Amino acid sequence: MRVNQQRLRSDIESNAEFGAVPTDEGRGRTVLTGSEADRRAREFFCERLRDAGLSITIDEVGNIVGRWEPESADPDAAPVATGSHLDSVPEGGIFDGPLGVYAGLESVRAMQDAGIEPVRPVEVVNFTEEEGQRFGGGLIGSAVAVGELSVEEALDIEDADGIPLGDALADIGYRGEGRVDAADWDSWIELHIEQSERLEDAAVPAGVVTSIVGLSRCAVEITGEADHAGSTLMDDRSDALAAASEFVLDVERATNERNEVSETAVGTVGKLEVSPNAPNVIAGKVDLTVDIRDVAYDSIEYVIDEAEASLDRIEAERPVEAALSHPWDRKPVEMSERCRAALHDAGTDADLDTLDLHSGAGHDTMHVAAVTDAALLFAPSRDGISHNPREWTDWEDCADATRVLAGALADLATE
Amino acid sequence: MRVNQQRLRSDIESNAEFGAVPTDEGRGRTVLTGSEADRRAREFFCERLRDAGLSITIDEVGNIVGRWEPESADPDAAPVATGSHLDSVPEGGIFDGPLGVYAGLESVRAMQDAGIEPVRPVEVVNFTEEEGQRFGGGLIGSAVAVGELSVEEALDIEDADGIPLGDALADIGYRGEGRVDAADWDSWIELHIEQSERLEDAAVPAGVVTSIVGLSRCAVEITGEADHAGSTLMDDRSDALAAASEFVLDVERATNERNEVSETAVGTVGKLEVSPNAPNVIAGKVDLTVDIRDVAYDSIEYVIDEAEASLDRIEAERPVEAALSHPWDRKPVEMSERCRAALHDAGTDADLDTLDLHSGAGHDTMHVAAVTDAALLFAPSRDGISHNPREWTDWEDCADATRVLAGALADLATE
Repeated sequence: MRVNQQRLRSDIESNAEFGAVPTDEGRGRTVLTGSEADRRAREFFCERLRDAGLSITIDEVGNIVGRWEPESADPDAAPVATGSHLDSVPEGGIFDGPLGVYAGLESVRAMQDAGIEPVRPVEVVNFTEEEGQRFGGGLIGSAVAVGELSVEEALDIEDADGIPLGDALADIGYRGEGRVDAADWDSWIELHIEQSERLEDAAVPAGVVTSIVGLSRCAVEITGEADHAGSTLMDDRSDALAAASEFVLDVERATNERNEVSETAVGTVGKLEVSPNAPNVIAGKVDLTVDIRDVAYDSIEYVIDEAEASLDRIEAERPVEAALSHPWDRKPVEMSERCRAALHDAGTDADLDTLDLHSGAGHDTMHVAAVTDAALLFAPSRDGISHNPREWTDWEDCADATRVLAGALADLATE
Repeated sequence: MRVNQQRLRSDIESNAEFGAVPTDEGRGRTVLTGSEADRRAREFFCERLRDAGLSITIDEVGNIVGRWEPESADPDAAPVATGSHLDSVPEGGIFDGPLGVYAGLESVRAMQDAGIEPVRPVEVVNFTEEEGQRFGGGLIGSAVAVGELSVEEALDIEDADGIPLGDALADIGYRGEGRVDAADWDSWIELHIEQSERLEDAAVPAGVVTSIVGLSRCAVEITGEADHAGSTLMDDRSDALAAASEFVLDVERATNERNEVSETAVGTVGKLEVSPNAPNVIAGKVDLTVDIRDVAYDSIEYVIDEAEASLDRIEAERPVEAALSHPWDRKPVEMSERCRAALHDAGTDADLDTLDLHSGAGHDTMHVAAVTDAALLFAPSRDGISHNPREWTDWEDCADATRVLAGALADLATE
């Protein structure tokens, strides 16, 4: 099946204009849910769906589904679905998310061009708030689509300014009706950039994920005393940032220890906010998050235990108070054998190598796998860099991975 | 000389309404230079100066001077000056700055009430941007008043949004004309809260500062790689926040070491910003400031040397790059013996104890001392807390310290 590399590239490059952040080091974009950039990205996606003859559904949490239902398909058959997300982290890259959305659409166009006659409808999906940068912990649209989160709960999630997701979506005209239900799908495949270097190192254009890591997120608050930096002697201080610095290093140390048992274990303090954050004021409070992942759930438990022990020790050694909450937690998830086989077969048919690997990132597929057969396909990303303007996947690799995706979707839809 | 405690309290409490931040733990305020809160605080101060019959000058960088020139005074005699600042840190307290401004005004009113006939004019001053929370490193108004910074340089200092100080002052109607010149003053005394516990512990209402610590500020940038927190293995990371955490602890350790030689040495990382600061992104960059102070300048040199050595070690051990710049630096400053003697004498006359101590904070007096005889007087502050809504000085202590101030000013002005 022929995939049109230029058409795919043009869609991704057009999408990259929304929320574009000029940088010296590459093409960045900031597309937070409910922003003007998000509105424009969604509008352009809907235009492109219509151009390809797909009908559009927008549910109450803003999930967008384009449906291709050719005459060959039974309208009542469970659809084959594909997609990803259009939102980004602040100053993220142009491929993380959009590649999967537009590769899904390109797969439908490739099937149309090739005259393939599926017996099932094919749906192309943009899930809302995958990154969790403005609302909650991320993966919100897919959480609703699998029933893990109710529509009402999702709509009530507030951003840092107290604006609920429902209002933010209504503001940009993308609060629709009803709920996309992933359990209605026969199967699901998401194409995403790898965000690691295994495919690049192996010079393979498509990675078939075997399992997705479990993921825990902890929120930590360390409270000291916001005193004057000049007139408070060292012995009289309760410095929340010095205490937090010990904690950050303890999380790193515990995760490195765990790597001796499981090399895929990772632990990260990526967000840390100091209050009042002034040069001449001792930090009175630090809020930070810990993100812990592994294919083995006991690694996650180990790092959380060590993090809690670290806070106990810090509280004993310094005049600070610390609190850890554990707002969410997901077990590792296995991918569907049927879908994985379809991907390997499609690789063989297209004369493209494929490689089995695990996924360190959650992705919406983690949710979808709870209610239907699901798979996750990776395209190489240069130096493994993502969530960064230097994130890059060669256009040839984008097209090759899309060939594998399109072949597998065609296989599943004509079964 | 009688000081009117209720009148002083009423002024400070009225001033506390501008930028008031409601908190459970006390009375906070946020008065950033050029804000609406700053405009209202300045407007009220000018009203109160006029009510007491003082004439007002506002210079081009927004320094406000109220001048009391009774018939007894030679208009050409060098004035005796007093004052402090009305700006605050974010969520700062209500005494840091305003006590010195309104105690200065209350001293003039007390002299008026007592029928004192000074031979020199007396000036009450509000210096612009002491705290340096919006523009530059702080003490800007006094830097201009002593010629350390030119008017033009000061007006061009930009805030984080690129707005120059000159525009911010013009926006609130407080960009005046000319330049207040502190070299014209016969002498200067500033009353300020202690921000430490020595006076409280000794139950003494007035501390006479012997010397002000030297102060260095360093800016540090640590650059890593903003990769995905899930798919970047621990060994492949360049985590700027983990590196910065080591640095924060090294600064603390070096300062504690120095305390064995000089117990007044302090070193603080109070401001730290993570980029992109997202839970699922490894920190790509951390910017932080180091604030180092002591009465002995070689302590400052020691901590800076150790900070530089720390960054060298971190660069050698982690795949990050680090840069330290040293934008400003001030040597310790001795206070004038003549002014200190006037303060001790005023304490004796008012039957109030006074105590000699050093100042860990810079204060505008540090600048003024470069061009004329200057002194700094401290009032007790509960638990030494400042830059915090829990900052507190009993009204009785405010009044007692003002008695000492007023007596010393009267002494200097009638000489």
